[in-house]
Amino acid sequence: MNNLNDFSRTALLRLDDRELNELASRMRQFLVDSVAATGGHLGAALGTVELTIALHRVFDSPRDVMVFDTGHQCYAHKILTDRAAGFSTLRQSGGLSGYPSRAESVHDWVENSHASVSLAWADGIAKAIARDSSSGRRVVAVIGDGALTGGVAWEGLNNLATAGHPVIVVINDNSRSYDPTVGGLSVHLDRLRRGDTTAGNLFESLGFAYLGPVDGHDIGAISAVLREATATGRAVVVHCVTAKGHGYPPAESDEDDRMHACGVIDPATGFPSRPNKRMWTDVFGAELDAVARTRPDVVALTAAMRLPTGLGALSQARPDAVIDSGIAEQHVLASAAGLATGGAHPVVALYSTFLHRAFDQLLLDVALHRLPVTVVLDRAGITGPDGPSHHGMWDLALLAAVPGMRIACPRDPQRLRELLREALDVKGPTALRYPKAVVGEDMTALAQMSGLDVLYRSRNLPLNVLLVSIGALAPECLLAAESLTGEGIGVTVVDPRWIWPINPALVAMAARHQFIVTVEDGIAEGGVGTRMAQAITTTRTHVLGLPTDFLAHAGREELLSQTGLTGAAIAETCRRLVAEQTTPAGTALSGSLR
Amino acid sequence: MNNLNDFSRTALLRLDDRELNELASRMRQFLVDSVAATGGHLGAALGTVELTIALHRVFDSPRDVMVFDTGHQCYAHKILTDRAAGFSTLRQSGGLSGYPSRAESVHDWVENSHASVSLAWADGIAKAIARDSSSGRRVVAVIGDGALTGGVAWEGLNNLATAGHPVIVVINDNSRSYDPTVGGLSVHLDRLRRGDTTAGNLFESLGFAYLGPVDGHDIGAISAVLREATATGRAVVVHCVTAKGHGYPPAESDEDDRMHACGVIDPATGFPSRPNKRMWTDVFGAELDAVARTRPDVVALTAAMRLPTGLGALSQARPDAVIDSGIAEQHVLASAAGLATGGAHPVVALYSTFLHRAFDQLLLDVALHRLPVTVVLDRAGITGPDGPSHHGMWDLALLAAVPGMRIACPRDPQRLRELLREALDVKGPTALRYPKAVVGEDMTALAQMSGLDVLYRSRNLPLNVLLVSIGALAPECLLAAESLTGEGIGVTVVDPRWIWPINPALVAMAARHQFIVTVEDGIAEGGVGTRMAQAITTTRTHVLGLPTDFLAHAGREELLSQTGLTGAAIAETCRRLVAEQTTPAGTALSGSLR
Repeated sequence: MNNLNDFSRTALLRLDDRELNELASRMRQFLVDSVAATGGHLGAALGTVELTIALHRVFDSPRDVMVFDTGHQCYAHKILTDRAAGFSTLRQSGGLSGYPSRAESVHDWVENSHASVSLAWADGIAKAIARDSSSGRRVVAVIGDGALTGGVAWEGLNNLATAGHPVIVVINDNSRSYDPTVGGLSVHLDRLRRGDTTAGNLFESLGFAYLGPVDGHDIGAISAVLREATATGRAVVVHCVTAKGHGYPPAESDEDDRMHACGVIDPATGFPSRPNKRMWTDVFGAELDAVARTRPDVVALTAAMRLPTGLGALSQARPDAVIDSGIAEQHVLASAAGLATGGAHPVVALYSTFLHRAFDQLLLDVALHRLPVTVVLDRAGITGPDGPSHHGMWDLALLAAVPGMRIACPRDPQRLRELLREALDVKGPTALRYPKAVVGEDMTALAQMSGLDVLYRSRNLPLNVLLVSIGALAPECLLAAESLTGEGIGVTVVDPRWIWPINPALVAMAARHQFIVTVEDGIAEGGVGTRMAQAITTTRTHVLGLPTDFLAHAGREELLSQTGLTGAAIAETCRRLVAEQTTPAGTALSGSLR
Repeated sequence: MNNLNDFSRTALLRLDDRELNELASRMRQFLVDSVAATGGHLGAALGTVELTIALHRVFDSPRDVMVFDTGHQCYAHKILTDRAAGFSTLRQSGGLSGYPSRAESVHDWVENSHASVSLAWADGIAKAIARDSSSGRRVVAVIGDGALTGGVAWEGLNNLATAGHPVIVVINDNSRSYDPTVGGLSVHLDRLRRGDTTAGNLFESLGFAYLGPVDGHDIGAISAVLREATATGRAVVVHCVTAKGHGYPPAESDEDDRMHACGVIDPATGFPSRPNKRMWTDVFGAELDAVARTRPDVVALTAAMRLPTGLGALSQARPDAVIDSGIAEQHVLASAAGLATGGAHPVVALYSTFLHRAFDQLLLDVALHRLPVTVVLDRAGITGPDGPSHHGMWDLALLAAVPGMRIACPRDPQRLRELLREALDVKGPTALRYPKAVVGEDMTALAQMSGLDVLYRSRNLPLNVLLVSIGALAPECLLAAESLTGEGIGVTVVDPRWIWPINPALVAMAARHQFIVTVEDGIAEGGVGTRMAQAITTTRTHVLGLPTDFLAHAGREELLSQTGLTGAAIAETCRRLVAEQTTPAGTALSGSLR
């Protein structure tokens, strides 16, 4: 066992507790060194080293099934299943996924990295396994206390409690999501951690056996409790108390989020190796803080993502103006409807991908009641290294399907500030969205027409192409326009700012051009460009966007290039359209990977 | 107080318990008589008469805010807020809504009739009210035990427990959703009802005060507990035990669903006044039962809707093949993914509108893992009397956005049977959808071409229009085709059966026609017709469908007529297209109310 790459799981069974503790320390050092070089979810990874060793010691994976909720808990599991060598390519194109991946290993079952569904998976897998009652296979779900604040986890607990299968629910209780976990459950878990059962035991009330609390960094103790859990033969909760960032002082002392995720860092200090650049999130956070100073009705809502969504400044200035409801997007949207009914203007700050969880509440609580709620979607479009379950590709298609919804996509910092303020003056539902990216320079409009910003116009050339630029793709559209102009193709670039519902001025402008090309970093089928094409009946409209497909982890720029959302690829589409102008009319789509 | 129309809420305060009991009996008789004549949610209405009287006696609505979860509990509330006269028009076009309606009354707050969000609303409203700390206004949420099985209710409990506002959560515990409530919570509530606290008290564990159980049909007792709840000054759960259908023997003895909802009935017997006709649901239920006899891998999943989604026959024949997870659509979809991973082929039977709750799980649990799960959506398209939150208008737009999803829309009973069997042979995610309607006669195809069914072809006329008929709208498309043929316009009607992804044969067929018109009973913007228009680049495509808007309650036929989805309106669109054939090319949209 000279290095972790040589290590096999079966070797675990031959090690005693002391040797296993030695293994844990080496794994921890390996994680710090390798994640420092690549970036990744370090805090969660460090918290689950001993727990994961104990799981692989007691259970026989993949015959026994281990489901990791919010898969970034799985780094130690990857090491123990022969993937240590891959960590040098963590979250890079073609490299090791930051989440479980069935393509990587038979030990991985669930790739969805959204929180709280592990219990439903465990329920389903246990029911399938039970069809062969003699198998004796075990199912274990590892779920954080933060993930238990999500509704689908409750649905899982409610069902597992009476399903009659001996599923083991391991609560990886580190008292945190990003922030400290909120609500009645966190208070209750804290009591149980202290051995205080004066308020009963919620899990026993539901019908589970409950074992713990156990020190989640004591391999011997966890192993013993897991064996005891197995012996109960019924649904059991193992309450495992861990510390996010355990054993790595820079993470342990990080009160913000225990180094939940980090970029490339100096492993000795935990400090970023590269200077932080200004992100879209930073611009939003500063402007929201500024506007809230004169707007006491503004209240910001987060689903356990206060800092990552940019609410840090506001929460410092006016703590009562920021409400964290836990990993509970459904509750956040419906309670925003309640707040708006009572006279507030809620700003719901989410990652784009997590809006999927609250479509029903956006539609039937916010929009049906025509309430002034502003949804601000960070990490929209291509997100990059987190892979398929974190791209924000579906938001425009979902938002535009909601009656009365107005959608804004800022192209630059100044537009983000303006559009946020405009949204806060709308007496109905609004949404803003922007990517996880370094923000560029402000791009002044050549002309403003009825709410549209004209960013570029070829001089002394016919009106061949109107490029409709959505949000942060404006620089790519400008690159395309400049290149086409040089070839004698006339291009207008327009940024509609409020991209939906369609601005009648855009329809009028379209009629004066030979072709329209819309450019969005959302799915091209059924997104906003599609709807523009339906509204523009005078002119052939070509929709550029992302394919309806699951895009693997890779850098954002790399994925934009692969999906044809670069200046060069946009120019090529326009060039082809102009060349083919004799083609029969209709709307064309281009969203496939090239 | 000669009749309920004369009754005012303030009069309540002058009545003693005996007189209030007399009032309750008269309200109950009124409900039986009037709902028997119109149809409606009778069981739930009868269960909440005394509770609602007590609420209006103790609280001062609308100053105090009452939120009714799953709004069909609100009939007694409507009577007590001056709407008794409206019951003769219940759920009819222009008549009284079957749910709370802000247009009807200032006493109504939340119109969303999807279960489990009342706690989030109460949380938001209480937070808004608390901004004026001197107001002393109360917030009460009335939520069924069934609704508490839904995840967003858990998120609400978790947040209310520590929010510090004195919200009163009244559990209307009748032990049922449609079916008896499932899971650990129901077992726990049953213990609490029996006064057994050996397994603790889940609500107290979370941090609530708990009062009860109280007899939900004893006005004096409920009033006393509600006053006690108010006096606690903190978040409190009032456990109110009711009987669905209370006081009406035909409902009390209905073991299926306690007459949850009924059509027009004989009030004396509770039997339907009109013979039951065969619905799409019945055809599905019989075929699923038949196919499951030779397919032991088939398992049906329901979110507390076993009978209404047609799973009655299968659950009688093979009880283990039907799993009810409570009102927990997220869990149902994610546990279906788990079951499919373990070798089963789950059939998830939902109402179309409730798929909104599980989009994330359909996308990232089922589709990302490319699992063979078949989602069967009943009540798709226009649903009718249940109003805006029950129409199944968004499903096609949502489903088509999911990578790898295959969508089938049967036009008749035989196609439903065939498509269900075909779906069960697909090694990836599939969906079927059909309306809440009487099923028509089988419609044999003239010709079958690469999976397309050609239903009609004008003889000796040019190929003017290709009508692409989606599902149950086929008869209307045929009516249009016959009428146009008589006028000399050539029409082909094609039913693609599997409507998405687009069949290449449909693209080829489109190229031979002058115009394409797609017809679907989903939103026209961003639905399936839109996507077909994107794929058909050779020919101008016109998309007919529903407006992106909230449609009020009315009959299904009436709403289809209002939205232009009738033979006559389809024909008129085709006629106009042919007449305007000189119009510049592009894709046109028609989805607005006419």
